[in-house]
Amino acid sequence: MLISNEIKVIAFDADDTLWVNLPLFYALEEEYIELMRPYVSEKEARDALFQTEVGNMEIYGYGVKPFVLSVIETAIRLSNNRIKPQAIERVIQLGKNILEAPIELLPGVKECLDYFLATNYRLVLATKGDALDQERKLKDSGLSRYFEHVEVMSDKQTSNYLDLFKKLKIEPQNFFMIGNSLKSDVLPVVNLGGEAIHIPFHSTWEYESADENQDTIKAYNSLFEFLECLNR
Amino acid sequence: MLISNEIKVIAFDADDTLWVNLPLFYALEEEYIELMRPYVSEKEARDALFQTEVGNMEIYGYGVKPFVLSVIETAIRLSNNRIKPQAIERVIQLGKNILEAPIELLPGVKECLDYFLATNYRLVLATKGDALDQERKLKDSGLSRYFEHVEVMSDKQTSNYLDLFKKLKIEPQNFFMIGNSLKSDVLPVVNLGGEAIHIPFHSTWEYESADENQDTIKAYNSLFEFLECLNR
Repeated sequence: MLISNEIKVIAFDADDTLWVNLPLFYALEEEYIELMRPYVSEKEARDALFQTEVGNMEIYGYGVKPFVLSVIETAIRLSNNRIKPQAIERVIQLGKNILEAPIELLPGVKECLDYFLATNYRLVLATKGDALDQERKLKDSGLSRYFEHVEVMSDKQTSNYLDLFKKLKIEPQNFFMIGNSLKSDVLPVVNLGGEAIHIPFHSTWEYESADENQDTIKAYNSLFEFLECLNR
Repeated sequence: MLISNEIKVIAFDADDTLWVNLPLFYALEEEYIELMRPYVSEKEARDALFQTEVGNMEIYGYGVKPFVLSVIETAIRLSNNRIKPQAIERVIQLGKNILEAPIELLPGVKECLDYFLATNYRLVLATKGDALDQERKLKDSGLSRYFEHVEVMSDKQTSNYLDLFKKLKIEPQNFFMIGNSLKSDVLPVVNLGGEAIHIPFHSTWEYESADENQDTIKAYNSLFEFLECLNR
């Protein structure tokens, strides 16, 4: 059985599970790499940005604004204050472009949501990052009507999931999570006694990578494939 | 009667109602004004920053990160690309300082919350801005235990309050809001048929100013004064 009898809530991650997100960040990162070429190697530029992001995570959290601020901070440092204000202006503009980018749904998303809407499961969107940005994307995606509850979590660790279960008035074993991040969507839920499946996006942000033994994790290439298995 | 019989939920705004917030932003703004002295007048610098903030509001929302990004954007523009990267680095660092600043509770907050905790009202924190930052401040404030529900709203317009009422499973007339912003805390709630009182902070951000007729709005100088009236 793909979904056990105890499950009451089917929860979906949003970024790179329902819609494309990471490639927008990569586009900005590539511009940053170009800007840094006069000063450091590509590898140094990437590593330094990642270190800045991780270092800022606790106070900045996730999302576009933290990313833009970390890019600016790193660019100033790596260039030894030689970066041009025009370049910083450009980074800010590229960040705004991400915040206004049209939503591109991933394959099988609508079909999968339609399937679950016709069931008795409660559908929840459980995402992390910036509330305003996530709300905008949900609205633009046209998917709002599918979800009984939308939770923008500040992080997706077990404690954050326990808070969510409390809000939904459910136990961990009633919760089924679908997402592209093993670290954020799958492992914490499974560790709490819930169920989760992994729909890998074609790329994963280094910060989200997990190297735990994944033999027991169910994975599907897309929501289409998961839907096919449900219908079998 | 200060609180009508129909009220079930007492909701508190957070920034500049429970704890000091705005003065931290002003400190950064003053540094920005100093940085701009070689290029524009103080008034031009302030006006331009405010315009940038308002222009970015829809995509950036409220909080420290939007403020820092707007300061950098404005400083680059007003200086005609002459601002030094070191100055931008300093602005970023000052923003981080705000995000890590210790919490300073306002007068009467604990006493007022203790009073309501001993009643049958449901206590809610209804704030806006950045979820991560608000969670951090709530935790550091030591006030978490008072609130049955914490809502970080992306904005505080009537539609946002209607969403909150739905989440709390109450009607507008069951809701009593306490806050320092007429525009965000008081008027939308009163317009929906709820109750609200105004506890003005000693200063108000220009964006939050409201000039509607306020004769009918109940205002108290502090939560102490409100508490005294309740106890009378």
